[in-house]
Amino acid sequence: MITTKIPVRFVDCDGMGHVNNAVYYTYFEEGKREIFRWFTPSMNLKDWRVIVASTHCDYIQEINYGEEITVYTWISTISRSSFDVEHAIAGPNGNWHARGRVTLIGYNYERKQVVPLSEEIKDILRQHQDAPRNVPELRKIRMPDQLEE
Amino acid sequence: MITTKIPVRFVDCDGMGHVNNAVYYTYFEEGKREIFRWFTPSMNLKDWRVIVASTHCDYIQEINYGEEITVYTWISTISRSSFDVEHAIAGPNGNWHARGRVTLIGYNYERKQVVPLSEEIKDILRQHQDAPRNVPELRKIRMPDQLEE
Amino acid sequence: MITTKIPVRFVDCDGMGHVNNAVYYTYFEEGKREIFRWFTPSMNLKDWRVIVASTHCDYIQEINYGEEITVYTWISTISRSSFDVEHAIAGPNGNWHARGRVTLIGYNYERKQVVPLSEEIKDILRQHQDAPRNVPELRKIRMPDQLEE
Amino acid sequence: MITTKIPVRFVDCDGMGHVNNAVYYTYFEEGKREIFRWFTPSMNLKDWRVIVASTHCDYIQEINYGEEITVYTWISTISRSSFDVEHAIAGPNGNWHARGRVTLIGYNYERKQVVPLSEEIKDILRQHQDAPRNVPELRKIRMPDQLEE
Repeated sequence: MITTKIPVRFVDCDGMGHVNNAVYYTYFEEGKREIFRWFTPSMNLKDWRVIVASTHCDYIQEINYGEEITVYTWISTISRSSFDVEHAIAGPNGNWHARGRVTLIGYNYERKQVVPLSEEIKDILRQHQDAPRNVPELRKIRMPDQLEE
Repeated sequence: MITTKIPVRFVDCDGMGHVNNAVYYTYFEEGKREIFRWFTPSMNLKDWRVIVASTHCDYIQEINYGEEITVYTWISTISRSSFDVEHAIAGPNGNWHARGRVTLIGYNYERKQVVPLSEEIKDILRQHQDAPRNVPELRKIRMPDQLEE
Repeated sequence: MITTKIPVRFVDCDGMGHVNNAVYYTYFEEGKREIFRWFTPSMNLKDWRVIVASTHCDYIQEINYGEEITVYTWISTISRSSFDVEHAIAGPNGNWHARGRVTLIGYNYERKQVVPLSEEIKDILRQHQDAPRNVPELRKIRMPDQLEE
Repeated sequence: MITTKIPVRFVDCDGMGHVNNAVYYTYFEEGKREIFRWFTPSMNLKDWRVIVASTHCDYIQEINYGEEITVYTWISTISRSSFDVEHAIAGPNGNWHARGRVTLIGYNYERKQVVPLSEEIKDILRQHQDAPRNVPELRKIRMPDQLEE
């Protein structure tokens, strides 16, 4: 599990006075910094090797300016060329602000091609599969056959 | 269905040279402008009556600076106090860039309380349930019991 | 003079409920799109040939969500390798929201080197030196010897 | 002098691969957090008492993703209802990335009125007028009568 403390910026808040829903994905992105380094030790953007396939976030409690938040990041599913990164955002009292999931794919930007994950990478990913205690489940995304509440 | 043309800004692109994954949610937000107006005809931020509960985006094809994109927005599920807004982003040739879903909840910001949707609002929502032709399905979000590929 | 209409996005507004001061520079950047094209007709970010040296903005009247704004962009000073781009932001009634200046430099990103402006570019720049009518002057930036009011 | 360390976010970088020019003002804003607190000890956005009148930034050296930067913030001019906040951004080796100035005005958001600075505030401002060592001067902004180089 990766633990990342993030200062909430003034500009992260929108006209509602709390952090805008899109900015949670920026927080998730900062939580993945170490993961990016596993793929690109130089952190040179020209050598990037992952691309985002899918993102999801459940909003639990609003985040306000000046608050200190912590993003917890861990790995769940590991597949041939993709893997799921789980995120949870906590406040200073251990309260949960949000719960998310981002699917990343191994990717060659020059050839614009999906690339299978190497065994070395899979080994590192497997070492980061521990979730934080009491973390809430992702809400089930409703599928067409679940339209009735 | 609501159709919104959005100019891609220079700053929407991140170090990879294409639109950052979080910015798609900003595009979705712009696609919901008319919906916000249904709830708050004055568009005064102090009279806002909806809050974001959940967001999801599948990334299909990258978006580049200078491209013209169109966000299609329509309603799927309508529940007692929440409803699902569906989004799809298309390029100039009808190609699909992304597919998303945002769950909004009726909300009283002063009392910090969920509020049921009025019948008038539900009527308007029901009139906007037509999806664009050939729009792709949302990818199923993998649940814990689907970890095997 | 270049005229650019820009939709104010929901997320452009910060916790004060109006457009954040940094976002004005994003509006200025969008106003320069045609200028970027003069230097890089393909608009390919890998062939970019200008870099920002200096930016300035005077804020005259706040901008609110949902407003339609127009950025006026024109050239003032043209030097050997740099030039000043002037900006003014107007509201729908011809009211002035802001007045700015951005100094751009010809630049080779691979060699990280300043490059003199070509005669062709200077010719184009000279054709865009007309300012909008009644545009306000930039406020003088106070220099150390002007500290007394 | 106020010293603020700021983590450079992935999304702060634009398509050029370095921090976008507008984001420097977001860094300056974060450098002013303590100043905001002098005016609004609760940090409640509804009790905000300053507004931005003018901003300026000279770009000295690009900032890249993953770098650690420090924003130095101090006060220069103090006038009846406004004051100048000076900023400088340094890299890990004491190298200078940028130099800026932001003019703030005492402001009553409800009445939309300029408000003189109180003596208490002026006292605090006067205690923060020390600049960092060797900080570069602001480049002179060219005025119409200085158009010849």
